[in-house]
Amino acid sequence: MVAASALIGVLGGMEPLATVDFLHKIVEETPAATDQEHVPVVCWNVPQIPDRQHALAGRGPSPLPAMLQGIVRLAAAGATRIVVPCNTAHCWFDELQAASPVPLIHIVDASLAALLVGEDDERVGLIASRGTLESGLYQRRLDSAGIPWLANSDAEIEELFVPGCYAVKRNALHEGALLLARAAERLVERGANRLILACTEVPLALRRIDSPLLGISIDTNQALAGACVDYWLAASRHAARQVA
Amino acid sequence: MVAASALIGVLGGMEPLATVDFLHKIVEETPAATDQEHVPVVCWNVPQIPDRQHALAGRGPSPLPAMLQGIVRLAAAGATRIVVPCNTAHCWFDELQAASPVPLIHIVDASLAALLVGEDDERVGLIASRGTLESGLYQRRLDSAGIPWLANSDAEIEELFVPGCYAVKRNALHEGALLLARAAERLVERGANRLILACTEVPLALRRIDSPLLGISIDTNQALAGACVDYWLAASRHAARQVA
Repeated sequence: MVAASALIGVLGGMEPLATVDFLHKIVEETPAATDQEHVPVVCWNVPQIPDRQHALAGRGPSPLPAMLQGIVRLAAAGATRIVVPCNTAHCWFDELQAASPVPLIHIVDASLAALLVGEDDERVGLIASRGTLESGLYQRRLDSAGIPWLANSDAEIEELFVPGCYAVKRNALHEGALLLARAAERLVERGANRLILACTEVPLALRRIDSPLLGISIDTNQALAGACVDYWLAASRHAARQVA
Repeated sequence: MVAASALIGVLGGMEPLATVDFLHKIVEETPAATDQEHVPVVCWNVPQIPDRQHALAGRGPSPLPAMLQGIVRLAAAGATRIVVPCNTAHCWFDELQAASPVPLIHIVDASLAALLVGEDDERVGLIASRGTLESGLYQRRLDSAGIPWLANSDAEIEELFVPGCYAVKRNALHEGALLLARAAERLVERGANRLILACTEVPLALRRIDSPLLGISIDTNQALAGACVDYWLAASRHAARQVA
């Protein structure tokens, strides 16, 4: 494979282990036989960023200045595309893109592209934090694409999603998985035939119980990793054509 | 914790998954209760670096220019210490340090520091590739510290270490682990009471079979991750004292 000048910049740190998991997904998604065929990545994994959920709830400082610092450093390091493996951080996507000299790949675009590879007649169930749901990040883009969607009720979020996520955070994976799977099943009962898992904890937990729901699910960080690999492979093919 | 201006730069890409594993080790080694308390890291995980073993054997181009590019980018991104989570790459350590505006932490120094935490009367068994052994990286520093050491014979490397590593590389972890454990046991039989596992595949394999040898072993990438965490904690304490 011919070396391309393409370089993926990862704005991480939200949270540190999820960033490491995202880098792992890029390696896993890459069809490479040698080290040299893997995707070149520069990663800004600097977690000194004010809490995003608190900021959205009006209870803390904005994370934007810290995120902008990361964007500037990644661009200075030579990144040709930048990604942010965190759904909540996409509430500041427009400001980040406006300040970046290079294009950002949006996690919702990557997730919808992964969704549209599937069959017609899709009805999407959206599993996400209240902050992500209230931002309308996914709903606006699903509406634009004409894809019907549904989400958990406030009661389901309170009784299933929130305690499920906190169980995963304190490493009670099995307990968390059962709660999160029930939140997802409610959406399937109401007609969802695909699921978007727009929260890091959910795919992690469902994999732990080997849930059959994974078969109809999009893991949004995995979709974003796939978009990075697609970009790199296209850039490499382009570089090879220019040499040939 | 007060935010410090310390920033760890990781020169990765050799190989991509080992780099991800190293970042994971930094997170695991950090005593943090919140995202914001984790070690800030910028990582250059660009694997388009010529093969190090081939270069050392005189059968391929030097990896040094590609590594130097990474050093320059990490320093430009604001790294205050740089580490290279790959033993073989340390054959070029002096050239990297000479070209870097910030100090590098040497993987052998980090490993010996981890070793010296233990008891007296240590006799170190060195498990490493032929390239690492021939470079004398570990032996010179062990000699300077007055620590006796021994390594596998050529025949043991040929019959146990090399096929063990290649088994791990093709994901035959159990088979590889049995071979690598036998290579290590030969050193223990000849008097080693500590082991330095100076090759990424070895700790990975020994963990798979839950080998009791791990109890006397130093995983060099883990020791380097620990050195990063120690540096970050010291810088944070220093920043906190300045504020107080």
